[in-house]
Amino acid sequence: MTTINLNADMGESYGRFTVGNDESIMKVIRSASIACGFHAGDPTVMADAVRLAKENGVSIGAHPGFNDIWGFGRREIKMNPRDLEYMIAYQIGALNGIAAGVGLKVTHVKPHGALNNMAHDDADYAGAIARGIKSVDRDIIFVANACSEMVKAGREQGLRVAEEAYVDRTYEDNGKMTSRRLPDAMIKDKESAIRQVLSFVEQGALISKNGKKLPTRIHTFCTHGDEATGVGVVSAVREALEKNGIRVVPLPEMDF
Amino acid sequence: MTTINLNADMGESYGRFTVGNDESIMKVIRSASIACGFHAGDPTVMADAVRLAKENGVSIGAHPGFNDIWGFGRREIKMNPRDLEYMIAYQIGALNGIAAGVGLKVTHVKPHGALNNMAHDDADYAGAIARGIKSVDRDIIFVANACSEMVKAGREQGLRVAEEAYVDRTYEDNGKMTSRRLPDAMIKDKESAIRQVLSFVEQGALISKNGKKLPTRIHTFCTHGDEATGVGVVSAVREALEKNGIRVVPLPEMDF
Amino acid sequence: MTTINLNADMGESYGRFTVGNDESIMKVIRSASIACGFHAGDPTVMADAVRLAKENGVSIGAHPGFNDIWGFGRREIKMNPRDLEYMIAYQIGALNGIAAGVGLKVTHVKPHGALNNMAHDDADYAGAIARGIKSVDRDIIFVANACSEMVKAGREQGLRVAEEAYVDRTYEDNGKMTSRRLPDAMIKDKESAIRQVLSFVEQGALISKNGKKLPTRIHTFCTHGDEATGVGVVSAVREALEKNGIRVVPLPEMDF
Amino acid sequence: MTTINLNADMGESYGRFTVGNDESIMKVIRSASIACGFHAGDPTVMADAVRLAKENGVSIGAHPGFNDIWGFGRREIKMNPRDLEYMIAYQIGALNGIAAGVGLKVTHVKPHGALNNMAHDDADYAGAIARGIKSVDRDIIFVANACSEMVKAGREQGLRVAEEAYVDRTYEDNGKMTSRRLPDAMIKDKESAIRQVLSFVEQGALISKNGKKLPTRIHTFCTHGDEATGVGVVSAVREALEKNGIRVVPLPEMDF
Repeated sequence: MTTINLNADMGESYGRFTVGNDESIMKVIRSASIACGFHAGDPTVMADAVRLAKENGVSIGAHPGFNDIWGFGRREIKMNPRDLEYMIAYQIGALNGIAAGVGLKVTHVKPHGALNNMAHDDADYAGAIARGIKSVDRDIIFVANACSEMVKAGREQGLRVAEEAYVDRTYEDNGKMTSRRLPDAMIKDKESAIRQVLSFVEQGALISKNGKKLPTRIHTFCTHGDEATGVGVVSAVREALEKNGIRVVPLPEMDF
Repeated sequence: MTTINLNADMGESYGRFTVGNDESIMKVIRSASIACGFHAGDPTVMADAVRLAKENGVSIGAHPGFNDIWGFGRREIKMNPRDLEYMIAYQIGALNGIAAGVGLKVTHVKPHGALNNMAHDDADYAGAIARGIKSVDRDIIFVANACSEMVKAGREQGLRVAEEAYVDRTYEDNGKMTSRRLPDAMIKDKESAIRQVLSFVEQGALISKNGKKLPTRIHTFCTHGDEATGVGVVSAVREALEKNGIRVVPLPEMDF
Repeated sequence: MTTINLNADMGESYGRFTVGNDESIMKVIRSASIACGFHAGDPTVMADAVRLAKENGVSIGAHPGFNDIWGFGRREIKMNPRDLEYMIAYQIGALNGIAAGVGLKVTHVKPHGALNNMAHDDADYAGAIARGIKSVDRDIIFVANACSEMVKAGREQGLRVAEEAYVDRTYEDNGKMTSRRLPDAMIKDKESAIRQVLSFVEQGALISKNGKKLPTRIHTFCTHGDEATGVGVVSAVREALEKNGIRVVPLPEMDF
Repeated sequence: MTTINLNADMGESYGRFTVGNDESIMKVIRSASIACGFHAGDPTVMADAVRLAKENGVSIGAHPGFNDIWGFGRREIKMNPRDLEYMIAYQIGALNGIAAGVGLKVTHVKPHGALNNMAHDDADYAGAIARGIKSVDRDIIFVANACSEMVKAGREQGLRVAEEAYVDRTYEDNGKMTSRRLPDAMIKDKESAIRQVLSFVEQGALISKNGKKLPTRIHTFCTHGDEATGVGVVSAVREALEKNGIRVVPLPEMDF
């Protein structure tokens, strides 16, 4: 029986600045990528997100980003790979520190925002992230954009890699997401989202908006908690997956 | 045979801002309290400090401070205890994340600067720090100012507490350090430093500059790495301790 | 004919973290206190707030706070007065830099959050703020809690001081606002708000919730833009003032 | 009689993190570019630098950088031009706020580090900086790398542009500085520095290390205060300039 994972970014509030609707989304996903204080997520916000994950049987991962609250981690920053590697280890460790009190551990890592975008194509960044993860705990799963340099780097380091696609984003022929600046970047209706997810799973491929197939197994689908349509769409996707006999499980329960 | 520990604060550079002389001090101390990025110490600085500690057989601890690079953690900030507890867990975890790659673990925690000063007297702060430590790992040793609320809070939480005195600071009759604003706050010559350390150990007490004894076992002496006199004074102190048959050991090797 | 001012805090978003409803509030107030990047308000958020103020004929002031995005400037920080003085001048200048492009200038300063609370009673803080304001431009109006040390300090420095009361907060007999922790801290209905404002103006006094009068002229009433009830209450207050023949004007048009 | 300017970056300490030797350098330069708190330079450090400039008859400019204390503004950050424009205006204003109390005004702007490097070639960045300067005060002089996009953008905005070369850096044939990673990037001896400066002035050109001439008038030479050789080299350069009948003046006294 096929297994699949649904994940979302969580804990992206900061102090009195509140974003997202973690409580609703946490009910439908199986793994949460929790911001670690660099682009969002202060220690208390992190603790609340970890607790919520535990209550919902959701596995937790670190969602490390650039050191840029102002830019919400969405601005590209050029760092040397050594600094980047330690920055990753720092953020994973920080979340483990918070999670210990709740009885959980970081079981995956998924880079955030501009860091994730840069590491898609940049082998130096991808390698630094993979080494940072491995240095903390080689059992951590690296959640990486399907068909990216991160997938390669993670496997080179001997990590389990969960290739990721988005429930609600369309893809170009090169396997990258359509830029948010373009009108057809987002999928907003349930039917299209379900169609995308089922076709990716059944065909074992990422399929571009033009129909081009990039064969690869997708292990996890990401959804955006902060969109109005978020919860509805992802609930429908989960239901459709389960109806089609696909088990939706936390990342550590996946077979790789 | 009596055991004692010598510790110092390490890794307090930040990016291109370099402070301290970690390499020299690391040779004479047995435990290093490493800044965790909130008042000083970026991830790379932390990694360098951890590696240096390992090379010198020095045990490592977290040196968590307020979130205040500008003020170097020396400005009092009023936080609610819940935020403080998670802020401590975050910083310990972050250092554990960095240390994992070097094969070390955080074995003690010593609060920094204004946080340490506030928690000396403030039971809420002391309790939050102790709970933060315990939540991450109940085997971590809490290095606390002798005779402070932190000592009480640590023991209430079931933690091992290492009571700390300074090699190079004088004390008031209430057990607090003489304010740096007063001319007799600092001990700068080796002879006085040795006399202070030996008398505290032999008499099982903190002894004020006026000669008042506050009976308590001192487990660890702290020295200031960033003072010109630092290395010379602490080397002489270590030699004197060893000559007097006192073993100077890393904190995890202490008997409590 | 009596003049009065209505002000609110504005521009307290930060990057992608959005708070407040500046557009609605700006229509009913006459002066805006704009966050300056230390507790909230990045340069672009500030520029948007200044532009909105200009479009609505609203005068602008700096709303300087502690250097603490995480705590939204609501955590007390102990700074030395010299650092505080320059921190104030810096933030005023920063807003003037942004405002110049829109053709406006900072005409008042109102401290934010914990800084405002501390300076209410602390003459050192109050003096540092007043000197910081004066150093930039002695024509700037100091908006200060009625009956506070800030009022004294501002007048000692030769500044015009606008004594401030809140539309929607009750007062203790000592002239301080009722703590938000108490159930009767906030005024949420229009009638009570109008009664408070009119009685303060007509009786030339701050009047506590117990009916104690602290005679002083209130020059400006502050309202909270981020409360659901905010706009409705302040609109009603403004209407009531005008019906009673009181002109509601921007701060620079007040007679002191 | 020809005029020329000598400038250096100043005020790049941050809180307790001290860098540079501002006091020595300030005696030999005629214009100081002062860090504005984003990559270095807290409000008190800025005030000290401004006061030192005044004592030495040195004109002041803003030295705005990316919002990155950790990276000392030396990491490239991709910002949208609108944010960049306001970030520049903010930093200029902040320094004006500090300078007002000392009786000085910002008379030039020189971007720092990675921002300066990016804007050398990037017309969007160069334009945003120029607009930011102009929005605050169109009389401010834009100190720009000779032969860069910043020179063009500054002139397009109607600003006076001071083309800058370095006393102690060599140049490639394309007019850019030799990368610091290469062994021949720096000029460390007085004789070479003097030869470079005099040849650039006399020949009205930037001259590469290979002898290629890029004709343009150099208005100001920059020196690095934080190098051991800094003060000695720049003193010798100033003396050589004056011996050759060239007046070394603050930027506002230059003829453009």
